[in-house]
Amino acid sequence: MSQPTEQSPERSSGRAVPTSADVARLAGVSRATVSYVLNNTSAVRISEPTRQRVREAAEELGYVPHAAARSLRAGHSRMVLIPSSHVPVGPLYSRFFNDFQWALRRLDYTVVQYGSVGLEAEEAARAWAELRPVAVVSLGEVELTGQGVEILKRSGARAVITLGTQRVEGTHALVMDQGRVGEVATEHLLETGRRRIGVVVPEEPGLGMFSGPRLDGARRAAERAGATVVPLPLRYEEESADALAARWRELGLDGVFAYNDEYAMLLMRSLQDAGISVPDETAVVGADDLLLGRLLRPRLSTVRIDMVLGRELAELVDHAVRETDAPPVSRDLLDSRIVRRESS
Amino acid sequence: MSQPTEQSPERSSGRAVPTSADVARLAGVSRATVSYVLNNTSAVRISEPTRQRVREAAEELGYVPHAAARSLRAGHSRMVLIPSSHVPVGPLYSRFFNDFQWALRRLDYTVVQYGSVGLEAEEAARAWAELRPVAVVSLGEVELTGQGVEILKRSGARAVITLGTQRVEGTHALVMDQGRVGEVATEHLLETGRRRIGVVVPEEPGLGMFSGPRLDGARRAAERAGATVVPLPLRYEEESADALAARWRELGLDGVFAYNDEYAMLLMRSLQDAGISVPDETAVVGADDLLLGRLLRPRLSTVRIDMVLGRELAELVDHAVRETDAPPVSRDLLDSRIVRRESS
Repeated sequence: MSQPTEQSPERSSGRAVPTSADVARLAGVSRATVSYVLNNTSAVRISEPTRQRVREAAEELGYVPHAAARSLRAGHSRMVLIPSSHVPVGPLYSRFFNDFQWALRRLDYTVVQYGSVGLEAEEAARAWAELRPVAVVSLGEVELTGQGVEILKRSGARAVITLGTQRVEGTHALVMDQGRVGEVATEHLLETGRRRIGVVVPEEPGLGMFSGPRLDGARRAAERAGATVVPLPLRYEEESADALAARWRELGLDGVFAYNDEYAMLLMRSLQDAGISVPDETAVVGADDLLLGRLLRPRLSTVRIDMVLGRELAELVDHAVRETDAPPVSRDLLDSRIVRRESS
Repeated sequence: MSQPTEQSPERSSGRAVPTSADVARLAGVSRATVSYVLNNTSAVRISEPTRQRVREAAEELGYVPHAAARSLRAGHSRMVLIPSSHVPVGPLYSRFFNDFQWALRRLDYTVVQYGSVGLEAEEAARAWAELRPVAVVSLGEVELTGQGVEILKRSGARAVITLGTQRVEGTHALVMDQGRVGEVATEHLLETGRRRIGVVVPEEPGLGMFSGPRLDGARRAAERAGATVVPLPLRYEEESADALAARWRELGLDGVFAYNDEYAMLLMRSLQDAGISVPDETAVVGADDLLLGRLLRPRLSTVRIDMVLGRELAELVDHAVRETDAPPVSRDLLDSRIVRRESS
């Protein structure tokens, strides 16, 4: 099942795959010249008419340079590998990620997302290393270890950039300070006089890397003010929210940070159906500043999260690739602030 | 800016990258044996102790086989390349895509998403071809042309699978019948006695590949019943929805298919604020069956869209790779049905 039927190399559908030798023959030049022209090597002087002839021959034969062969020769590629995972991402992150890809493209990098679901630590690093990326930017949930970084560097990666709270030896660290999101929400609730504050912790897998730090941030803010934080596990389902609302008065909470706007919408519906008045009895704050929060009644207060520009991050990657001896950079990608509406 | 500082090949951070020759030396075997063992070639008989020795030597040196070198030797890779684009995708598609990646991984393929924003037709095909994928599955918005397919096949791709309504020569065609979504919604509105039906057409870029066919499907259903369809351009913004609601009574619509649940939530809010009763004066139907639709009052009617299993699609890819002479396959990925709640 997993082995394809064998065919002779570089053949497919019964037709020969054109090689650079074919291009050289048709253009009447050496293979080296073909390579120089098609890889845009500016170090070697080749006349414009010759360049033109090579390009036309390549076009006519349908020849495409082999990125793999090129990186074998050069010892490195222009590939930036970004492990992709199954973390559910919101529109904020999507937009950031698109900008980041665009910016890398403009700096002449090839961006490849590598499906890494189910791979762990060194196993993942080894799989990525097989593609010989020049940089790895790990924004997802696969945790890199020191050994994983070693594997990548040994296979030619010049920069390894990780996202996370733990510092990994030999990497540049990006930080998304999720803790600030919980802190900002809780500080706002405290300012409006709330003292017993619930913090929604989604039970869906993959969200722990966001929800854990947000809860910690809420605790920090509450501790400073001598107030109380109560973690509230919640599944993204009506039944789960109804069950939570049913024991709301037992919990005696006067404010809740609901993880994000979608969980806030879910919880607010159940609270309202259970006769709990928002914001009079309980204030509700979401996060992400989605349009849907403005469509709710009462309109939802939220934490607006601004991410660093994709362009800035792309430049950081490029710098790390070019200056391998530069000291590790640490950069916070997020900026959080409260948007007060009617629910708090 | 775009050229990294030159270093000698296969060196990074001043340390030599281990090669298969180093592994062979340490294990006391030939390079060919190293290659056979680490690439799991079962055709050649090598004793288990020898295999063990090679694996240990590779481990000790931190050697990782070079996917590029392997594919150069074999003439093809196990890479399935999936162009990634900036189309905003919903949770339904995300889940499908994760399943698809998992299933390909289990069939021993490497899944690589290639950032293709801004690339057009042949330019895109050429960029993908440089990585020598064994299959290309184009689910996004980059339109492949016959010439693009030719470029890919010449570079060794055994299967090219496209998503779209246009048939492209030499590809297997997947169809997402978005037209059915509009048809199902409109048939439902007609059954409840509505005769002048608005169809929301989002103005956001990148959604035309969904909204166009949905509008066409709505028109087909209305035509059969002698009813009227009115396209309603809408931006995903409160101002845009309020403006549409303000001229709602001029339009004289008694039903609306609002593209999806999120646009339905936006429009329903503005209609209610403008004093238009849902569903008495106007029925509203969304699509996607998101949780938020059940949280609205009235609860939102919607079109539930079920996608083919990722596993099925992975098997189709595997089949196409192994049987290059098999006739092109065409497969519909979607199944749509109405979920009636209170808004219609």
